[in-house]
Amino acid sequence: MAICPDNKALTLYPFPADLVNQRMQEVLACDSSEIQEIIAYLLESSGKMLRPRLVFLSASMYPHEPRVVTDMAVAIELVHLASLVHDDVIDQAKLRRGHVSLNSRWGNNASVLTGDYLFATAFNLVNRHNQKDILDNLSTTIQIMCAGEIKQMSLAHHLEVSEDEYLDKSYGKTACLFASCCKIGALACAMPAEEIAALEEFGLCLGYAYQIIDDLLDFLSDSSLLGKPCGGDLLEGNITLPVIYALRDPHYGPWLQTILSGDPFDPGYIPEITAALINSGAVTYSLTLSQKFLARGIARLNVLPSSPARKEIMDMGSFLLEGYYRNLSAYCPMSEQELSSL
Amino acid sequence: MAICPDNKALTLYPFPADLVNQRMQEVLACDSSEIQEIIAYLLESSGKMLRPRLVFLSASMYPHEPRVVTDMAVAIELVHLASLVHDDVIDQAKLRRGHVSLNSRWGNNASVLTGDYLFATAFNLVNRHNQKDILDNLSTTIQIMCAGEIKQMSLAHHLEVSEDEYLDKSYGKTACLFASCCKIGALACAMPAEEIAALEEFGLCLGYAYQIIDDLLDFLSDSSLLGKPCGGDLLEGNITLPVIYALRDPHYGPWLQTILSGDPFDPGYIPEITAALINSGAVTYSLTLSQKFLARGIARLNVLPSSPARKEIMDMGSFLLEGYYRNLSAYCPMSEQELSSL
Repeated sequence: MAICPDNKALTLYPFPADLVNQRMQEVLACDSSEIQEIIAYLLESSGKMLRPRLVFLSASMYPHEPRVVTDMAVAIELVHLASLVHDDVIDQAKLRRGHVSLNSRWGNNASVLTGDYLFATAFNLVNRHNQKDILDNLSTTIQIMCAGEIKQMSLAHHLEVSEDEYLDKSYGKTACLFASCCKIGALACAMPAEEIAALEEFGLCLGYAYQIIDDLLDFLSDSSLLGKPCGGDLLEGNITLPVIYALRDPHYGPWLQTILSGDPFDPGYIPEITAALINSGAVTYSLTLSQKFLARGIARLNVLPSSPARKEIMDMGSFLLEGYYRNLSAYCPMSEQELSSL
Repeated sequence: MAICPDNKALTLYPFPADLVNQRMQEVLACDSSEIQEIIAYLLESSGKMLRPRLVFLSASMYPHEPRVVTDMAVAIELVHLASLVHDDVIDQAKLRRGHVSLNSRWGNNASVLTGDYLFATAFNLVNRHNQKDILDNLSTTIQIMCAGEIKQMSLAHHLEVSEDEYLDKSYGKTACLFASCCKIGALACAMPAEEIAALEEFGLCLGYAYQIIDDLLDFLSDSSLLGKPCGGDLLEGNITLPVIYALRDPHYGPWLQTILSGDPFDPGYIPEITAALINSGAVTYSLTLSQKFLARGIARLNVLPSSPARKEIMDMGSFLLEGYYRNLSAYCPMSEQELSSL
């Protein structure tokens, strides 16, 4: 079953993808043929451009300078790409977005340096527009992302990790950058402080909702859709929400604890573990928590004046996730009523 | 023989090392105990602080705000530290500044992320002072450093590398950041453009002169002084100036070519290769080129009005390198006259 909805549907929302891509190539241009080759490869497998979309939609509520907003969206995507490239070094990932990862093709060395080059280019670009608040937000966000990832490493293979610690990890990994996208879009136009804060919190909640789904897909999607092998998080010792939930289950918990304490843990157990996540209600619980985050984020947008732009960003949040919710609900063995009482 | 002069002598030049260290700790402070532990380890083995010294000395020519100059010096040192941490991942270095390297102790993963954290902190710090030109220079410098290092990787083990390509590599590796230190110090005070350019070129020349010596020391220093094993550059395939020179030598060239074409190249040959570098005049040639760069850099400072501050920065350049020159001249089998005609 195809769990991942068609990304193309996201293009319903007006977004100048070609412009962003072209500008990205422009700002990354340099004399080094080696960098050019690596960058070209990286841009070939561009993703959904979710983060630049959030920048654009957030800025669309108020009058703004399109050139500035485009550059801010490009800067955010550069930071995201840099963190993906460095993550692949860290995870020794063989695949990224269905393509051979940059580190598999060019080695860790070129990947570390390309990531640094992307970060530096992002800062250089924001700086051209004299956007002090934006540069402050972006640099602080990267600090949080790094600290979060180091934290995640220190928690690897810790089976006693709590739900709060999981959410902290998700903040550093995804939610803080989503929040930053919305805030940066808002800062790029003249928006009242209260509305900037509402957009930032929307981004934050959307980030949590998205990360939870991403963690479910690591078990429930197949590797061709995911663009990387299944159960990879668990194999890396990354204990995600469904596993935390199942570990607390009186029936499945002790069994799961024993399996996961194996050193090294046997990947042959992944299908059985996935079944346990479904049958213990861990998938249902995680899905429901994601839905709650999304609903909370969308509700925060009510502070913004009603406008077609506001409707668009609300819709975009739902649109991004509801396809996944629909498909993943096939793995929830509970009734609608049980679901709503969780 | 101790080739490396005593670093303590550099403290003759007024430089608020404690203040810079303290400020570095302040700006790097964060909630993450993991990052704190890594940062504390990194700051323990602080080096000569050459780059922050250049920022201070350059700024000292004109009236300036000491707090701003301190923060710019700190930012430069953070960028330098970040690049060292990432270099150690790239080179898989076991030692750095005589200590176990960060990647040996915490692994590549934490090192990649700590480097990113240091870069982000540097940008965050410069941004606090609304120094657009400085942020532009710093981000561009990092782009050049990354492109240069990727170039270096693509040239690894290429025995036909030219002297110009070597200088290009040295620009990315060292000279561009030295130039940046001087330019950033100059930009932090109200200095006329012509003088800023002169200081930048001084930094550039000092960087080339310093890198050439660093490359000689890789053969001629012993590993305890160097803080890393001898002949390491060659083992990594990094063909430096003395090797380029010796490869052109009619007597030693063909022999060296044969030895270095071995795959893998046998590290047991390092002492013989070092002898060949000395006897072919490659050490003499490299030393002389370093001296020429230093002289050219110092001459550029004549455009600045005569002042105690100008004398200090001129002296600092000589002081940094002349100890090495004196000690390395023991490996130059040529007469003074031969030397001067090179």
